[in-house]
Amino acid sequence: MRYELYYWPSIQGRGEFVRLALEDAGAAYVDVARRPRGMAAMLRLMESGTPKQPPFAPPFLKAGRLVIAQTANILLFLGPRLGLAPRSEAGRLWVHQLQLTIADWVTEAHDVHHPVGAGLYYEDQKREAKRRAREFRASRMAKFLDYFGEVVARHRGARVTYADLSLFQMIAGLRYAFPRAMARLERRRAWVAALHDRMAGRPRIRAYLASPRRIPFNEHGIFRHYPELDD
Amino acid sequence: MRYELYYWPSIQGRGEFVRLALEDAGAAYVDVARRPRGMAAMLRLMESGTPKQPPFAPPFLKAGRLVIAQTANILLFLGPRLGLAPRSEAGRLWVHQLQLTIADWVTEAHDVHHPVGAGLYYEDQKREAKRRAREFRASRMAKFLDYFGEVVARHRGARVTYADLSLFQMIAGLRYAFPRAMARLERRRAWVAALHDRMAGRPRIRAYLASPRRIPFNEHGIFRHYPELDD
Repeated sequence: MRYELYYWPSIQGRGEFVRLALEDAGAAYVDVARRPRGMAAMLRLMESGTPKQPPFAPPFLKAGRLVIAQTANILLFLGPRLGLAPRSEAGRLWVHQLQLTIADWVTEAHDVHHPVGAGLYYEDQKREAKRRAREFRASRMAKFLDYFGEVVARHRGARVTYADLSLFQMIAGLRYAFPRAMARLERRRAWVAALHDRMAGRPRIRAYLASPRRIPFNEHGIFRHYPELDD
Repeated sequence: MRYELYYWPSIQGRGEFVRLALEDAGAAYVDVARRPRGMAAMLRLMESGTPKQPPFAPPFLKAGRLVIAQTANILLFLGPRLGLAPRSEAGRLWVHQLQLTIADWVTEAHDVHHPVGAGLYYEDQKREAKRRAREFRASRMAKFLDYFGEVVARHRGARVTYADLSLFQMIAGLRYAFPRAMARLERRRAWVAALHDRMAGRPRIRAYLASPRRIPFNEHGIFRHYPELDD
């Protein structure tokens, strides 16, 4: 099966969680919108290409005749097919539950720089962003980190799933956006660097991160480095 | 199967999307935290009751030995069992995709009154809330409504799923929180009232809404009526 991923071509964004799973599995896929005329194809598919089941927003995945949207839903579908989720229903629900909690965290990380709304520029909501960033750094980051720290501790030695790869992406993103806060938070949480490095060291992920397919972090995506929002 | 739902006992909140599915199906369930000593049982289960698979937050559902968290994940599990989702994988992914988009909408509706953070009181973020509410009413409400209007139009006559019940809850909540904005938006969107009334008129839902099991909307939940945030 050759998958087609549709996502904005200039950011990691939510599409990156899908890319990491596809790359780790060595799956055959096309990152459609990054090819010539790919953006037009993506917009066409959003507007009229799927008459019965339109996606609300990218990313979405074409797999044969299926068009699947919502990041966590795409991973729910891909997980067992890529060998990145358990086969049992209970196991798949558990990994999906983790992914949905990561999705909540992603939204919170994004909204730090867009607390008033995604329709306005960061520059037009800087004051609100500063307040939200303080709250995020002071309580939310530690709360999520400690939850996942507990999960990682309880599942030591378990097979790698797409949720592990997503957690790697979360850590990489937070380090990029909040280097000082993360340095502080990682001081007593050795599992963070350990998990990050374990995933970054997987052969296909290492090759991917070093390739031009990995879009660098930038100030248009979810994780943005605005020093005024860091510790 | 007798299900156990764990959720905060004094609000509809995210638990309500699960309650509506259970009620519509006439399922046997216990709303644990609303019973004597139920809150203690919920907190105990969160802290130590599920050593391998802890939930990040309520709601969560106990089904035999399974403990499932994340609203949309619970509905993914319950859907086929309650006759509220298609049996095919493609059908289940589609309904789940809709539910995840509703979940995003729920988060945005909540964050209107908590744009800086859930850890602070509304009173301490009123100024930010006013700006966010303006953005939500001016663009986000119509965007989500029109997406779901399109979906409803394309699936006329299809069997009712848990996503229809969740959409009913969304409409009821937005009408409570933003009565003036919703009146304005519904003027040219007749499908909104039609869907709301079709769901509210289902015998078990009608009985549920009239029962003491339906917690009234209030200013502690997701949908809060603060007149200063409405049109």
